[in-house]
Amino acid sequence: MNIIEIITKKKNKLELSYEEIKYAVEGYVNNTIKDYQMSALLMAIVINGMTDNEIYNLTEIMLNSGDKIDLSLINGIKVDKHSTGGIGDKTTLVVAPLVAACGVPVAKMSGRGLGFTGGTIDKLESIKGFNTNVDMNNFIKQVNDIGVALVSQTGNLVPADKKIYALRDVTGTTESIPLIASSIMSKKLASGADKIVLDVKVGKGAFMKNIDDAKKLSEIMIKIGKRFGKQVIALITNMDYPIGKTIGNGLEVREAINTLKGKGEERFTKLCLVIATYMVSLGKNISVDEALDLVTEKLNNKEGYNKFLELVKYQGGNVLDIDICKNKYEIISDKEGYLVDIDSISLAEFANNLGAGRKTKNDVINYGVGIILNKKVNDRIKKNEILGYVVSNNFVDTTKLMDAFTIKNTNIDEINMIYEVIK
Amino acid sequence: MNIIEIITKKKNKLELSYEEIKYAVEGYVNNTIKDYQMSALLMAIVINGMTDNEIYNLTEIMLNSGDKIDLSLINGIKVDKHSTGGIGDKTTLVVAPLVAACGVPVAKMSGRGLGFTGGTIDKLESIKGFNTNVDMNNFIKQVNDIGVALVSQTGNLVPADKKIYALRDVTGTTESIPLIASSIMSKKLASGADKIVLDVKVGKGAFMKNIDDAKKLSEIMIKIGKRFGKQVIALITNMDYPIGKTIGNGLEVREAINTLKGKGEERFTKLCLVIATYMVSLGKNISVDEALDLVTEKLNNKEGYNKFLELVKYQGGNVLDIDICKNKYEIISDKEGYLVDIDSISLAEFANNLGAGRKTKNDVINYGVGIILNKKVNDRIKKNEILGYVVSNNFVDTTKLMDAFTIKNTNIDEINMIYEVIK
Repeated sequence: MNIIEIITKKKNKLELSYEEIKYAVEGYVNNTIKDYQMSALLMAIVINGMTDNEIYNLTEIMLNSGDKIDLSLINGIKVDKHSTGGIGDKTTLVVAPLVAACGVPVAKMSGRGLGFTGGTIDKLESIKGFNTNVDMNNFIKQVNDIGVALVSQTGNLVPADKKIYALRDVTGTTESIPLIASSIMSKKLASGADKIVLDVKVGKGAFMKNIDDAKKLSEIMIKIGKRFGKQVIALITNMDYPIGKTIGNGLEVREAINTLKGKGEERFTKLCLVIATYMVSLGKNISVDEALDLVTEKLNNKEGYNKFLELVKYQGGNVLDIDICKNKYEIISDKEGYLVDIDSISLAEFANNLGAGRKTKNDVINYGVGIILNKKVNDRIKKNEILGYVVSNNFVDTTKLMDAFTIKNTNIDEINMIYEVIK
Repeated sequence: MNIIEIITKKKNKLELSYEEIKYAVEGYVNNTIKDYQMSALLMAIVINGMTDNEIYNLTEIMLNSGDKIDLSLINGIKVDKHSTGGIGDKTTLVVAPLVAACGVPVAKMSGRGLGFTGGTIDKLESIKGFNTNVDMNNFIKQVNDIGVALVSQTGNLVPADKKIYALRDVTGTTESIPLIASSIMSKKLASGADKIVLDVKVGKGAFMKNIDDAKKLSEIMIKIGKRFGKQVIALITNMDYPIGKTIGNGLEVREAINTLKGKGEERFTKLCLVIATYMVSLGKNISVDEALDLVTEKLNNKEGYNKFLELVKYQGGNVLDIDICKNKYEIISDKEGYLVDIDSISLAEFANNLGAGRKTKNDVINYGVGIILNKKVNDRIKKNEILGYVVSNNFVDTTKLMDAFTIKNTNIDEINMIYEVIK
């Protein structure tokens, strides 16, 4: 076997065998296959696609490239969730305690963010004292004690994906349903949960730009789950606008807390409730209606909120000390009409430039900075009204952010947060 | 501009602008664009193709990446030839002196071979004393003195192609008409000739496996020529079987000499006559029929042969001392019937293993080794007849070579050496 034959086969739209994919992936991890060869193969895959069998095999080979988490010492059905990535997406912070409050154990490992804003772990670290580096034994003990743990990844999970993902990022080979599906699913399978709820984002601020692609991605991820004996449900959700009303680590933790207190932004609250509902339905083997009733009850009676406080305390955090900068700089509307678009990518880039995310792996995050939205899409806006705030300790010129807000004379259709549920 | 956007554009089948191609090629030459990025872009080009405009621009940008040879001090119309590569292809050794004998100056720079067998320059170096390292002034003086010079490339011609070609070779991105066309034509344009005859090989032993692809390649190369003000004619020729009856450097020089003496193998002689005819027709602005008459005359009256002797002498070589090994090992037929196929790739690999070619850039060629064919395709073969010889100083087991010869009960159709002439 040799890599040029394998690349040529995929270039010619032929199906690669298990052994050929293994040869390519393992060779790349071992450095016998070079970056420039893997990137040529990846581009051929991006353009020519992969059969379902190739996707299963790629997922399995990547999964087997590293450690696998064993959650068998945790009682009950463990349900994990994964979002394909959204701007201002603090859903896990709300959903994990809410689901745990319903009696479904949530043993969740999350990543740090490399991109516009921090990941779930970065957000939690804006809470003073919060420890995300928990070893396996304590991780399992915590879930058995209080039903929920949110920790950063331990062990060497899916090193093949890590290396391939880094290469895809710099070679224009990120947009590919087979590569995205196998990347996500190899990591989810390595994380040891029994069932998985996927939040597949679609829209202007997401990887998937249209619902058809999001459906295809969802369907193949569900099939991969089935192949490995794991039930998977995918929710296709709206990512045209920022999720919730804040972007930035400390700000998002505060918003998650407010949401758990029942004072969250309406669309974001709905998104959290639906994701939690499917997780609880899977975890307790109950109907979606029953699960929704239970989740709604745990939100309304503050048991989800209390579970969050318990989680923060268990991991050493002080919920009264969240890193949020002291100054707010207003973003002022220069016209009147309806707010018909908020460009999430522009806001995210702005927040990133303030230090809310990392540009390279070694950047240090500024947890306190960010953006607060004072208006949401379809709100009626008066001239000189406050559209939002930039939060920072130092002066920020907010005028450049005006272009991210589109104000027109007529409003747009009602925004649908959940497009479809795929099982 | 950034390389990921450029890669993504080509991935999405969009046309790249002049500036974008320039950014990619120049960045790659300057090492600001990495191997793994260029290979992803190349694979996207291989699969999605290029428009004519993209091909013109790529050719121009590669051409401008290095030196250009100025042949204006040579009188007359300078005609160059180029073969896309054949096994046993010693055509230049016959054609160059023949064309020069007709009064058309041939100022030809050739390459060393990296592949199965040596290039034209390697072949010439099997002649004791033959000097291929001639500087520009002497190169031009020689052509003005005797009408022909065959030297190795001087100056830094098309460094962009050199670097990209080396990457294509190890990333499965060689088979691409736009990339082959721009690679060949950038080098031909840099070499300074006024008109060009292309020998586009098609068949089992060639890059192009079918006549349709060879036609497409020919047509785009002719268009590129037109774009740069150079008349180009392409001959599509047969490369199903070895060219002529020898493979190996010294052996091929001897065969070329015999061909110039009028004792060449019939199909090879025809190929040389046709290529020389089109070169003379272009160089003297005469009809193909007139050119054929002239070329045939110069073959028959040995003026072509004498020009070869003059060339060898001018460049310091002793034509009586050609490096050819002393021992011949017979390849014996084990059955009777018609010889319907000679697998040129197998023969070339065998010769390469004997040392006739280079496997890596720094390998030293053994000029004396090679293979002589005693029979040609469609010959009637008796059992135990000699099909050919392996030439080597040391014992060679020739039985492994038997598989390269296919003998069947019925013969095949007459072999057509020239499929088409495209202007």
